[in-house]
Amino acid sequence: MPRSPSELRELVEAYLEELAPAPELGTLIEPLRYALGGKRVRPVLCLATADALGLDVTEILPAAAAVELVHSFSLVHDDLPALDDDRERRGAPSVWAAYGEATAILAGDALLAEAMRLALLYPTAAVARELTMATLGMIGGQQLDLEGESDLARLHALKTGALFTAAIMCALWAGEVPVDEHPPWRAFAGELGLLFQVVDDLLDGDGYVNEVGADGARTMAGEAARRAQARLEEIDADTGVLAEIVDGLAARTA
Amino acid sequence: MPRSPSELRELVEAYLEELAPAPELGTLIEPLRYALGGKRVRPVLCLATADALGLDVTEILPAAAAVELVHSFSLVHDDLPALDDDRERRGAPSVWAAYGEATAILAGDALLAEAMRLALLYPTAAVARELTMATLGMIGGQQLDLEGESDLARLHALKTGALFTAAIMCALWAGEVPVDEHPPWRAFAGELGLLFQVVDDLLDGDGYVNEVGADGARTMAGEAARRAQARLEEIDADTGVLAEIVDGLAARTA
Repeated sequence: MPRSPSELRELVEAYLEELAPAPELGTLIEPLRYALGGKRVRPVLCLATADALGLDVTEILPAAAAVELVHSFSLVHDDLPALDDDRERRGAPSVWAAYGEATAILAGDALLAEAMRLALLYPTAAVARELTMATLGMIGGQQLDLEGESDLARLHALKTGALFTAAIMCALWAGEVPVDEHPPWRAFAGELGLLFQVVDDLLDGDGYVNEVGADGARTMAGEAARRAQARLEEIDADTGVLAEIVDGLAARTA
Repeated sequence: MPRSPSELRELVEAYLEELAPAPELGTLIEPLRYALGGKRVRPVLCLATADALGLDVTEILPAAAAVELVHSFSLVHDDLPALDDDRERRGAPSVWAAYGEATAILAGDALLAEAMRLALLYPTAAVARELTMATLGMIGGQQLDLEGESDLARLHALKTGALFTAAIMCALWAGEVPVDEHPPWRAFAGELGLLFQVVDDLLDGDGYVNEVGADGARTMAGEAARRAQARLEEIDADTGVLAEIVDGLAARTA
């Protein structure tokens, strides 16, 4: 019986709650934990993928948490005054606003290194490789954004798509799913990242909304959701909960 | 015939010169390369360790470069206005002074992620694990430094010692040297990190010089060098070049 998204979210929360970051981080552990708020979209996707494949989801928790830590790393650095200069994140002071810039820079670094530590708990290096390539893409995407890149598809593939793909693929690597079974999952992940970003733009009224209008963006989101579902149907796994997550991402209002 | 330190340095320079960072980094590749100046102390140590063990040093180059990239990552972020506020590094503008703060933050992130990419080129995850633990220590050490930590041994073990240890241990992991042969190498690395830091403090007139005076620091450096040499003598490997490096670090004037 596959677990529901909310059951999977509880598993993630409990794991993050009990996570013991490297003690060497000392007083950075508090801002690191502070930075770890959020809806857990990516780690839940990671666990739902594992569950669909019949893997033991508790063994996938370090990979799922690693993906979430990379996400948090990127937010902590992107919020800095020199970048997006955001004083608020999720209705509360951003890390730099709460702890100062120096600590926020180091806490972001710590989140990335701690993510790697978690990804490297597996015997295989493949989880860490997937996450590292996604991280490189995200960093390059943020630089493109600073430069005012106008190719939204390129920008979003790096800034958002790369980590959605890693969320799904890290479950496969951690579970040692044979590589010949990977391609439809990777294709599914690509559609899901696009769906998430277009809906984000609809909610924020920017990005694709500026490019194709709100109706155009709604059409894009609907098509990405339809393609994501079609990809899922190609996969020989118990993908019902993932289909539910696709519907939820398409319909989300926050 | 073991290679001299200068031959090893040339190998490192050639490898870094030809290094192709992840293309997703786009315009961050230029500041990333700009950040990669330096004396190559750590990668040369890594290669000299491999050479002493009779390993193929060309196979150790990605690990050696990964260590250097982590070193550069830490300098790029430490130089930022919110941290040490250093406009100069090695007689030239620091990365933020040359490219702006936003790019420096992202270039530092890119150096760390690119280091992980290199460390993960090996079949074993152990190289990346060693480097990740060293990185976590360095980040925690920088935070301690910001807080005005007064325990210099603790501070330096994290800020300097951790990466010296990784420089040596990554050669062993990359070369798949049996774990039961690791302890004397790790002990050697610890002495070497201390030696490097005490000499640094002598050259800068700070740290241990403030604590024990210049003569006291010279005595500490001499003792660390002697212990490092004693550790080398315990090791069944062709450690002549490493002994030469120890002498060079003890006598360095820049």
